[in-house]
Amino acid sequence: MGTIRFYLLVLLGIACSFINTHAIIPSTEKIRLNDGWEFIRQDMANAWEAVRPVRVGQPEMVPFWTKVTLPHCFNAEDAVDPNVNYYQGPGWYRTSISVDNPYQAGRVLLEFEGAGQKTDVYVYTKHVGTHVGGYDSWNVDITEAVEAFKKTDVCLERYDGRIPIVIRCDNSRDTEMIPSDMSDFNLYGGLYRYVNLVYTPSISFGQILISFSTDSKGQVGSVRIKTDLYAPQDFPRDKTTLNVVIKAPDGKEIYSNQKSDDLKLTMESDEITIRKPMLWDVDSPMLYTCEMTLNVNGETVRAIERFGFRHTEFREKGPFYLNGKRLLLRGTHRHEDHAGVAAALTEKMMIEEMMQIKRMGANFIRLGHYQQSDIILRLCDELGILVWEEIPWCRGGLGGERYKTQARQMLTNMILQHHNHPSIILWGMGNENDWPGDFETFDKEMIRSFMKELHDLSHKLDPSRMTAIRRCEFCKDIIDVYSPSIWAGWYSRSFPDYYLMAKEGMDGTSRFLHAEWGGDSHAGRHMESDYQGAGNAAKNGDWSESYIVRLFDWHLKEQENMPWLTGAAFWTFKDFSTPLRPENPIPYVNQKGVVERDGTPKESYYVFQSYWSKEPMIHIYGHSRPVRWGEANEKKEVLVYSNCTEVELFLNGVSQGVRKRNSQDYPAAGLRWNVIYNKGTANALKAVGVNNGKVYSDEIVQSYVTEKWGKPAKLNLTATVLCKDTVLIKAELKDLNGTPCLDSQDYIEFSGIGNGILLQNLGTAGGSKRVQASNGRASIKVSRGANLNSPFYILAKSGTLYSNQLSLFDSDGGISSVSVK
Amino acid sequence: MGTIRFYLLVLLGIACSFINTHAIIPSTEKIRLNDGWEFIRQDMANAWEAVRPVRVGQPEMVPFWTKVTLPHCFNAEDAVDPNVNYYQGPGWYRTSISVDNPYQAGRVLLEFEGAGQKTDVYVYTKHVGTHVGGYDSWNVDITEAVEAFKKTDVCLERYDGRIPIVIRCDNSRDTEMIPSDMSDFNLYGGLYRYVNLVYTPSISFGQILISFSTDSKGQVGSVRIKTDLYAPQDFPRDKTTLNVVIKAPDGKEIYSNQKSDDLKLTMESDEITIRKPMLWDVDSPMLYTCEMTLNVNGETVRAIERFGFRHTEFREKGPFYLNGKRLLLRGTHRHEDHAGVAAALTEKMMIEEMMQIKRMGANFIRLGHYQQSDIILRLCDELGILVWEEIPWCRGGLGGERYKTQARQMLTNMILQHHNHPSIILWGMGNENDWPGDFETFDKEMIRSFMKELHDLSHKLDPSRMTAIRRCEFCKDIIDVYSPSIWAGWYSRSFPDYYLMAKEGMDGTSRFLHAEWGGDSHAGRHMESDYQGAGNAAKNGDWSESYIVRLFDWHLKEQENMPWLTGAAFWTFKDFSTPLRPENPIPYVNQKGVVERDGTPKESYYVFQSYWSKEPMIHIYGHSRPVRWGEANEKKEVLVYSNCTEVELFLNGVSQGVRKRNSQDYPAAGLRWNVIYNKGTANALKAVGVNNGKVYSDEIVQSYVTEKWGKPAKLNLTATVLCKDTVLIKAELKDLNGTPCLDSQDYIEFSGIGNGILLQNLGTAGGSKRVQASNGRASIKVSRGANLNSPFYILAKSGTLYSNQLSLFDSDGGISSVSVK
Repeated sequence: MGTIRFYLLVLLGIACSFINTHAIIPSTEKIRLNDGWEFIRQDMANAWEAVRPVRVGQPEMVPFWTKVTLPHCFNAEDAVDPNVNYYQGPGWYRTSISVDNPYQAGRVLLEFEGAGQKTDVYVYTKHVGTHVGGYDSWNVDITEAVEAFKKTDVCLERYDGRIPIVIRCDNSRDTEMIPSDMSDFNLYGGLYRYVNLVYTPSISFGQILISFSTDSKGQVGSVRIKTDLYAPQDFPRDKTTLNVVIKAPDGKEIYSNQKSDDLKLTMESDEITIRKPMLWDVDSPMLYTCEMTLNVNGETVRAIERFGFRHTEFREKGPFYLNGKRLLLRGTHRHEDHAGVAAALTEKMMIEEMMQIKRMGANFIRLGHYQQSDIILRLCDELGILVWEEIPWCRGGLGGERYKTQARQMLTNMILQHHNHPSIILWGMGNENDWPGDFETFDKEMIRSFMKELHDLSHKLDPSRMTAIRRCEFCKDIIDVYSPSIWAGWYSRSFPDYYLMAKEGMDGTSRFLHAEWGGDSHAGRHMESDYQGAGNAAKNGDWSESYIVRLFDWHLKEQENMPWLTGAAFWTFKDFSTPLRPENPIPYVNQKGVVERDGTPKESYYVFQSYWSKEPMIHIYGHSRPVRWGEANEKKEVLVYSNCTEVELFLNGVSQGVRKRNSQDYPAAGLRWNVIYNKGTANALKAVGVNNGKVYSDEIVQSYVTEKWGKPAKLNLTATVLCKDTVLIKAELKDLNGTPCLDSQDYIEFSGIGNGILLQNLGTAGGSKRVQASNGRASIKVSRGANLNSPFYILAKSGTLYSNQLSLFDSDGGISSVSVK
Repeated sequence: MGTIRFYLLVLLGIACSFINTHAIIPSTEKIRLNDGWEFIRQDMANAWEAVRPVRVGQPEMVPFWTKVTLPHCFNAEDAVDPNVNYYQGPGWYRTSISVDNPYQAGRVLLEFEGAGQKTDVYVYTKHVGTHVGGYDSWNVDITEAVEAFKKTDVCLERYDGRIPIVIRCDNSRDTEMIPSDMSDFNLYGGLYRYVNLVYTPSISFGQILISFSTDSKGQVGSVRIKTDLYAPQDFPRDKTTLNVVIKAPDGKEIYSNQKSDDLKLTMESDEITIRKPMLWDVDSPMLYTCEMTLNVNGETVRAIERFGFRHTEFREKGPFYLNGKRLLLRGTHRHEDHAGVAAALTEKMMIEEMMQIKRMGANFIRLGHYQQSDIILRLCDELGILVWEEIPWCRGGLGGERYKTQARQMLTNMILQHHNHPSIILWGMGNENDWPGDFETFDKEMIRSFMKELHDLSHKLDPSRMTAIRRCEFCKDIIDVYSPSIWAGWYSRSFPDYYLMAKEGMDGTSRFLHAEWGGDSHAGRHMESDYQGAGNAAKNGDWSESYIVRLFDWHLKEQENMPWLTGAAFWTFKDFSTPLRPENPIPYVNQKGVVERDGTPKESYYVFQSYWSKEPMIHIYGHSRPVRWGEANEKKEVLVYSNCTEVELFLNGVSQGVRKRNSQDYPAAGLRWNVIYNKGTANALKAVGVNNGKVYSDEIVQSYVTEKWGKPAKLNLTATVLCKDTVLIKAELKDLNGTPCLDSQDYIEFSGIGNGILLQNLGTAGGSKRVQASNGRASIKVSRGANLNSPFYILAKSGTLYSNQLSLFDSDGGISSVSVK
C-alpha cells in the first residue's frame, strides 16, 4: 500500500468527521464542541458554584478556572511528572453553547464519545445525565432542559440566550469499577474524547446493527439490518418514511428500500443477499455503505453506516484464515495515550498513529485494555487492520454487584456500538484476571463464573465473533481464543526459548493467539556487549535498543516458522504512561513501544517493518547511536534492517560486501557486516539495497571511541538552537579526565528558571525532567517564553553532581555557558 | 504582668499538656499520636487500599504516601502558593499504634481535638467513626475494633501486634456545611489539631459542666457541677467511688465530697458556695481547680477542670463591666493559621502567639470565625484574655436541613466543650450572615428564624453567657450583643469619621461592641505622603504601614474618648491566608495583621502596645524603613510610639527636644518631631523615654534620598548570608540611571534551581515567591540543599524585567552575581 493512498485516507478521514458512523448516534450532523471551555481540577460543591454570577474581587471569583479546548485530559502532564502521583479525583468543565435546532419539534442531544471515568451533565444547575465508565460512548437528551432554561430570565440576562453546560468528570480510585487501579496504565480523567452537539427531528435513529457475512470463498454476501428509532415523544407516524440504500465500495447503489407505513421503533430487515461481493481484506479493505434516511413531516435525517464482507476462521490448533486463506496476524497493541495530551488525542493524531502502525506492516491490533474511540475503529476498517477489542476487566480481582453491572454494561456497549466495524474479529473479556489485590479475598470460582457469564453475553449480543482473553490460565477453557503470558527473554527465560514457549502455549489451549510479547527499551541507549537476557531481563537487563532489537528480530524470524500460529501481537506500539513504573528510565512510562510516546520511531520500528511491510525500506541500525566504542581495529557488527533482496554496505565509501536477505539468518535476516571503524573520527556508513530492480539507500555517521572511562565526575550541558524559539539541551556525563562515560545509566534531572518553558512532562527520552542517561547522555528541549530577549537558565544534576549552567535567549539571542566556580 | 510570669505560664502550659481540661475527654492521661504517620493528598478507594500488603515493584506500591508528623494540614504550603487553587478534597492518613490499656476491661479511645472538615476513622479496614465539622473536638471508642483486630492473623504477621489506624479527612467544597467557601479564610483539611490515644477504666468521665458565678462585688461565689459518666458497657456499680475536690488558686483544698452509692451516669451537685472567692480578672486571672477522681474496682481515673469567679455585665448602651468595674475591651482577632503550617499549629506556637497578644496589651479576643483549639482557651484563662468564641455560620446564606443540623451541633459542641473556661464571655452565632451567594435564593426571614433558634439554643445550653454576632443588620435585634460593620478609613469614609460611625453603631443597637476594624498593610512599605484614605482605602490606598499606623493611632485615641464603649476588637492580630485575595501584595494573604503570618511584628504592633500595655515600651516608627526620601533640608516627621510619660529624640547625637505623652495629641500621642535628615548618609535616630523614673530607649538608622527616580528599568538582586545555611536575597527596582524606585509597588517574582530550597510559600512579605515591592524592594530566603558545595541559582522578574542571577553555596561557600549579557 503506497504513500499516496495513505494521504487520500487522511483527507477522507478528516472529511468524514461530520458524517461519523457512531453506532450510538448515527446522525448526519454533529457539531464538535471543542472550543470555549473552562476547566477546574478539583471538586465543586455543585453545578450552582460553576454558574453563579461572579462579581470581580468577590468570593465567587475563586477558585480559578482555566481555559481549555476539547478533547482534554486531566492528566496531560502529571501522568509522567516524576515528582507527583497523577491526579485521581473530580474535575469540572463549563461552557455555554448556542442551541438552535433546525428541526421542528426536534431533539437536542449531547454526545460523549468517551469521558473518564464517571460523568455528570448539567444544563445550568439542572442535572440531565450521568454515566459510569470511561471508554464507551453515550449521549444525553437535553431538549427539555434547554427549553426550560430558555424560558428563564437568567438565559437572556446573563447568557445572551446561550445555554450553560456544566460537566463533572471523576477519575477517583474506585475498586468497585473497571478497570482496576492495579492496571498497568493510567485511569485518566476528563473529556478526553470529542463532545458533540446533535440535532434530530422528533424521530431519528438510535442503534443500527448491521449483520454481515460471507462464505469462505466470498461467493455470496448476506446482510441484515436492525434499526432502532429514537422517538422519546410522539411523532407523526403517518408522515414518516424510511429509505434504506446500500452502496458498493465503488459507489454503485446495489439495494434500496422504502418503508412508510407500519414504522416501528425497532425494525429488522429481511436478509439481503449480495452475489460476489467485493471482499474486505487487510490489503484491500472494501467498505460497503448503508445509507438510511428518515423523512419526517418534510424534514430529513440521515445515518450512514459502513460494513464489509469478510470470512474469518480461527481454526482449532491454528492457524487463522481470512477469506479462506491463511493469514498470519501480525499485531501490535495500542493505548489511548500520547505525549503532551495523555488520552486526549485529536482525530488528526489518531490518523497519524494508525497510519504509522499500518506502514510498519501490521495487519492486526489488540486495543488494550478498553473500548477505544470509534475513530480508531473507522481507521482500522479503512486501513485493513483486524481488531481484538476488549473491556477493561483487568487485574485486581472481582468486585460486587455494582462492579459486575458496570462490566456487563461495558461489554454490551462495546459490542453494540462497534458491532458494524468489519475490522473487528474478537471481543475481549479481560486481561490478567488472575491478578488479586483490590479485595481482601480472591475467589477463582467466582471469576470463572463471571467470565462464563460475559462470554455468553458476548455470543448472545454478537454470534458472529469469538471471545478472547489474555493471561488467566484458570479461565482459558471458557472463552474461544486464548493467549497465555509468554515473554521470552523479558520477564522469563531467554528469547531463543521462544519457539518452545509458544508451542507449549499452542498445545495447552484449543485456539492459541500470542498477545503481549517484547520488552522495554530506552530510546537512544545502545550497548556494545551482547546481553542475551537470560532469566529476567526486565529486572537485570540494560533496557537498551540493541538488546530489544535482537529480541524482536528473533521472535519475528521464529513466527515465520510456525505454520500453526494464528498470530501474535507485540506489546506495544507506542510507549505509554503508567502509574506503576515510577522507577523506569523515563519515570512512569512503560517503554515497551517501538515508537516513543510522541511517535518518534525507535530502531525496533524498522525491524518490524523489515519483516512485515511490503513497501520497500532500508534502515541501518543506529540512527540514534552517534558513538560506538571498543578496541582499536576491533571488528564491530553493523546491522541493516531491510526488506530488499540484497544490500551492500559502504564504510567511508569502501564497500564492505553484498549480503542477500534470508529471514531465517539471524540477526537482521543476514544483512550484517563486521567492519573496522576509524578511531575517533566520523565514520560514514551507507547501505544500498535493491528491491524489484529499484535502489534504496540509508546513511548514518558514527564516531568511534577507544579510550576507557572511569566513574561519572562531571556533568556537562551544551545547547543547540533547533529553530528561533526552541533550543535542544544535551547533558553528558564525563569522568575526571573529561572522557564521556558511554555506558552510564545514571538519572539526570533538568531544571530551569526564567523566560522559557522546559518541555519536561512528555514521557519521552528527550522530554522528561528526570530521565536515565542513554550512553551517558540525556537531553531536553526549551521553548522561548513570552518576553523577547529575556534569559532562561538551565541546570542539570545527576545524583550529587551538578552541571554547568546555560543561559538561553539573552539579548543577542545567543547562548552562554556559565560555569560559576 | 511581667516577662517572668509569662515564662512560668509557658512551662505550665507545656507541663499541663497531659492533664488537659478538655470537656470531651477529661482524662488524666492522653498520649499524643504525633509521630509515625503517612499521608496522601488524594482519595483512596477505601481503607483496604491503605493497608493492603505491598510487594516492592508491584501495583500496590503506588500511589506514594509521604511521611508526616501531627498536627498536619493539607494546605501548609498551597494556601499561599500564588500559582494554584488551594487543595480542597480528600486526604488519607495511616499509622500503626501500640495499644496496651493499663485498665482491666477498660476502654480505648481516639480523641481528635479538631480535624478538617469531615473525618472517617478506621481500625484496619473496620470503619469505627465519622465526624462532620472542622473545629470541634470529638472522639471514637475503638475498644471492640482493637480487640477484634488483635485476634486476626494479620495483626501479628503484618503488624507485630500493633493496630493499624486509617483516617480519611475531606475539605471538599460543600455548600450544605458551615463555614461557607465564601468565607474570607481557608477551609483547611487535615489532622491539624492533636490526635490523642486515651485509656480509661470501664467507667470514666464524659462531659463535666461547671457552672460558676459571683456577684458584681465578688462577695460570694457559687459553683454547681454536672458530671456525665462514660460507661458504654456494664461496670461494677458497687465498687465505684467518685471523689470531688475543689482547690483555690493558691492550691488550698476548699471543698471535697465523696459519692459511692447511687452513682448515676448523669449527676448534678448541689450548689457549692464559696465566700470571698479569689476573682478571675484580666490582670490577675485566678483559676480554681475541680479535681474529680473515679475509683473503679481499685483502679482510678482522674479529671481536672478549671474555672474562675468573675462577674460580667454588658450594660445596655454600654459600657462593659468586669467584677463591677468598667473595663474597656481592648481586643483583637485570631485565625488558626501560621506560616509554613497553616492550621497545624503546635502547642508551643499557640503559646507564643497568645503571649504576644497579651504583651501587646489586649484583654479581649474574638476567635474568628470558629471554635478554636482548647489549648487557646486554656491560655486565655491563664493569661487573662476575655473571649468571644463563635461558630462558623459565615456568609453564603442558609442551607437545608443537613446544614442546619451541623450548625446546631457545632453550637452545642462549642458551648459544652468550652463551657468551663472563665475567659469566655460571649457565644457568637455568626458573621456576615447577610452575605448571599451559595444558593440560588436568599431569604432574610429564614435567616432570622434560624438565628433565633441558635440564640435560644445557646441560652438554653448556657444561661450564663450572652450571644453575639457581627454584621447582619436584619438580625441585630435577635441576639444580645451586636457589632455592625464599621471600617472607618478602610472600606468606607475616612478614619477621622470613626467617632461618628461608632456612635451611630451604638445608638442603633442595645448592646454595641465594635468587632473588626483596621485595614491591610504590606510589611516594609512606608510612604512619605500623607494619604488619609478617603472613600475606599482598601481599593485606592497604598496599603502602607505608614497609613495603617495612623489609622490605628486615630482609632485608639478615639476609643479612649467613648465612655459608652464596651470594647472593640481590631481585625486581626496576625496576617492569615485566604482564598479570596489572590491579588493582594502577598497573594492569598489577608494582610490586616499587626504581625506578619510568621509572627514578625509590623510597626502597628507597637502602636497598640503604646496605648494598651502596662509594661514600659518605646519604639521609633520605622524599624523596617531603612530609607526615607524628600527634598534637601525638608523637615520630616519622626514618630515614636511609647507609653513613657516623656521622650527625647536624638538625631546623630543631637537632641531634637523632649515631648510629653498625651494620648489625645494625635499622632503618636504627641511623641513626634520634625527633623532635617542628612542627605545620603546614615542618620541615627535615638529615642529615650522615662517611665516611673526608669529610662527606656530605642534606636534606628535611616538613609535619606533626595534624588528623583523614573520608571523601573532594572531589577537588581543581592544576597546576604544570614547563617551558614541560610541566605537572604534582596531584589531592588531601579530606574535607567540606577536610582532606586522607592515608591514602586510592582510585583516581583522569585525562582530558583539547584541545591537549595526557596522559602517561598510562607505568606509573608519575605517569604512569597510572588510579592509586591515595598518601596521598590522585595526579599526572600534560601536554605542550603543536601549537597555540600553545590550551587543554587536564583533569579527574579518583575513584569517583563529580569534580574541578574545570583549563584549561592558554590564550592567555596561564596556568593557570586552572574549577570549574563
